[in-house]
Amino acid sequence: MTAKVEGCALCDADGGRVVFRCDDFRVIQADEKGFPAFYRVIWNRHVPEFSDLTDAARDTCMRAVLHVEKTLRQELQPTKINLAALGNVVPHLHWHVIARFDWDSHFPAPVWAAAVRPLDDARLGEIARRCETVNGKLASMAAVT
Amino acid sequence: MTAKVEGCALCDADGGRVVFRCDDFRVIQADEKGFPAFYRVIWNRHVPEFSDLTDAARDTCMRAVLHVEKTLRQELQPTKINLAALGNVVPHLHWHVIARFDWDSHFPAPVWAAAVRPLDDARLGEIARRCETVNGKLASMAAVT
Repeated sequence: MTAKVEGCALCDADGGRVVFRCDDFRVIQADEKGFPAFYRVIWNRHVPEFSDLTDAARDTCMRAVLHVEKTLRQELQPTKINLAALGNVVPHLHWHVIARFDWDSHFPAPVWAAAVRPLDDARLGEIARRCETVNGKLASMAAVT
Repeated sequence: MTAKVEGCALCDADGGRVVFRCDDFRVIQADEKGFPAFYRVIWNRHVPEFSDLTDAARDTCMRAVLHVEKTLRQELQPTKINLAALGNVVPHLHWHVIARFDWDSHFPAPVWAAAVRPLDDARLGEIARRCETVNGKLASMAAVT
């Protein structure tokens, strides 16, 4: 089922590097400076709010979020996982799933707040490399679909 | 089941005005200036990550989040609902459920970013009053527990 909304950035484009796609949703690795392990689970159909989904769809969506979270924890051992569905700018349901590290530019602040320290390019490069493994694991989300 | 962690702010205290409490979780209205409709679903047991919950507990938790979201939409007709589980500062699972309005001090930015306009005390007062109805509705979460 598709219901594209004209002018919606997430109806018009994938919104990042697609690492998994199925009929219901896609998982993308975002291009957010300083946060290589910033993923999004984007519901394919245009719905603004989590509560706009049916019970079954919501369950599928959260199992996808959970699977991304577990994969990030397993592969990257982050200090914390951050989950968020905001959508104030693009009101098309998407979940941010972000691996946070106590050395990252914003920790412990949210990624949307002001930075608290400079970028650590060496460590960011190492995480970016390890994200290739994450992406490989996420390419098959048999546990969800 | 309780497993308190010494020094954890959400093991030591409720974390806000409790509007509903059961064995598994509590719902609080937060005291966040400029955001009267800022609620949190706080899991009572100390677990850091969403994926630390069992499948059954996670389902209960998300049904609680969903119920708060639906109640906020019904009673306040917000521009957008914002959901987030961050926990970088207090790594004890809690979901932020925030009703956002296109006139609020930060919209469309996240509440954790910089303000983009002054507080609108008249409208905030009106939302605060309507939150009393929200709190009354949330006092009985029969749909969840």
